[in-house]
Amino acid sequence: MPFKGRNLRTGDADRFDFTRVQLVFLVGASDMAARCRVSAKAAGCRVIDLSATVAVEQQPCLVPEVNGGRVEAISDCRCFSSPLPESVALAIALAPIQQQLDLQRVTVTACLPVSSRGSAGVKELARQTSELLNARPLEPRVFGRQMAFNMLAQVEELDGAGHADQERRVAAELRQLLDLPKLRVAATFIQVPVFFGESLVVSLLGGAEADMQSLTAALDAAPGIELVEAGDYPTAVEDAVGQDVIHVGRVRQGTSDPREVNLWIVSDNVRKGAALNAVQSGELLIKDYL
Amino acid sequence: MPFKGRNLRTGDADRFDFTRVQLVFLVGASDMAARCRVSAKAAGCRVIDLSATVAVEQQPCLVPEVNGGRVEAISDCRCFSSPLPESVALAIALAPIQQQLDLQRVTVTACLPVSSRGSAGVKELARQTSELLNARPLEPRVFGRQMAFNMLAQVEELDGAGHADQERRVAAELRQLLDLPKLRVAATFIQVPVFFGESLVVSLLGGAEADMQSLTAALDAAPGIELVEAGDYPTAVEDAVGQDVIHVGRVRQGTSDPREVNLWIVSDNVRKGAALNAVQSGELLIKDYL
Repeated sequence: MPFKGRNLRTGDADRFDFTRVQLVFLVGASDMAARCRVSAKAAGCRVIDLSATVAVEQQPCLVPEVNGGRVEAISDCRCFSSPLPESVALAIALAPIQQQLDLQRVTVTACLPVSSRGSAGVKELARQTSELLNARPLEPRVFGRQMAFNMLAQVEELDGAGHADQERRVAAELRQLLDLPKLRVAATFIQVPVFFGESLVVSLLGGAEADMQSLTAALDAAPGIELVEAGDYPTAVEDAVGQDVIHVGRVRQGTSDPREVNLWIVSDNVRKGAALNAVQSGELLIKDYL
Repeated sequence: MPFKGRNLRTGDADRFDFTRVQLVFLVGASDMAARCRVSAKAAGCRVIDLSATVAVEQQPCLVPEVNGGRVEAISDCRCFSSPLPESVALAIALAPIQQQLDLQRVTVTACLPVSSRGSAGVKELARQTSELLNARPLEPRVFGRQMAFNMLAQVEELDGAGHADQERRVAAELRQLLDLPKLRVAATFIQVPVFFGESLVVSLLGGAEADMQSLTAALDAAPGIELVEAGDYPTAVEDAVGQDVIHVGRVRQGTSDPREVNLWIVSDNVRKGAALNAVQSGELLIKDYL
């Protein structure tokens, strides 16, 4: 398979002998991931699973900066999910402040780029944009809607109660990653006409009045976070894409509730949100358990 | 002034004799609006003010569907502000359900199109998009940032506490329009690469468990609202633009709190959000007070 000017050797996952390796990254179609998970576990491999298909109760999530110190308490240290990109970004931003805020509630609007739908999504936004700028009739394909110069209220099919899988999953993952089983999470995932990088609009509610000075100090000192000071703000395209850290800005107390804190996060959903977190999780397992 | 194939007569507002008219719509630059407001009031005119510059305590907001029945209780019925487009849309959607939900808290992400910055904003998004698609270097002008294929965390300069004027104003306007002085409002206004029509991601918290069936029934029966049923959702470009009603979709109960209700609103920020609401407010004053 050609990749960045080199040829990489690939093989059929279903015919792979997992006893030859100790660490497996599961990426790709969920049915294939499910079959390989069984084979890899049977062969005694450690598994980092990016398929986001196993419930958090059955396979714990790992974000090394957030719950890396608790891996032994939450699992047998064999199989982990690498959580959704949105959970990774939120957990990294909230972990440093959850205690002093006595975090009770998270409301988040997650603005997903079209790359969350792979290269088909990227091509579709480019195609639609070009058609519209050239005043040609639009025929939506990938998203079933006009995606160019428009916002879509959902990113996937909804369940009977009106929620997307990802919206339920980010809530469960956050509760586990932050070790806050009672945390209330209201998540809305929307699809936006951006190619790469995601933007999260976050409103937090704590149990006590927020001390903004110590709160921003904690965010500033935390690993994996680039805190952007007031007067400036980060954006997905200009700051997040290609970066290993998440960028946090617009940190501010509520205007009508001193327990409320609002912030804005941009993150590379492919890099720290997925690939990098999986690699870092793998490194943690190699260091301590292989 | 040429307008839609006709020539309209215009004059210098500062030299206009306001005793010749009974009803004045104030639109445009805030300093001019301020001077005309004084002249119009001195001449005994009724005023509908779209400048969004006078505090709600000094000049009440009017959205006929929402507080049209209370105009005499809240004012001398002479001068009204037509609220921000986001307040109009939110007030219309929340008024029918505020009582049964015992509404306590509103968290909203308001995604503003570039037309909120006038024709300069529209031209800038078109220009940036075309430059990027043709792989030419980008020189941001109007927004000071890459607006094409990107999300901006704020729509205007922020005050010392990190809030935009519009974010504070929408909170004050909602409290007044809904007659809920203690309502907590967390608003984030962001600028998105959409030409026309705004999208609002809304999370509500009530004092009691939400009865979703009677709640959607109330929304469905309310004036000014087109409720889009589960399985479908409205978008700014496809549903809102050019429409007098707001479209509401994705109405759903919280996954971790039965008092929480989430919804999605799209609205034509120029039409019902501004011009139409001002005209309807004027009609109400003409009918009852002129």
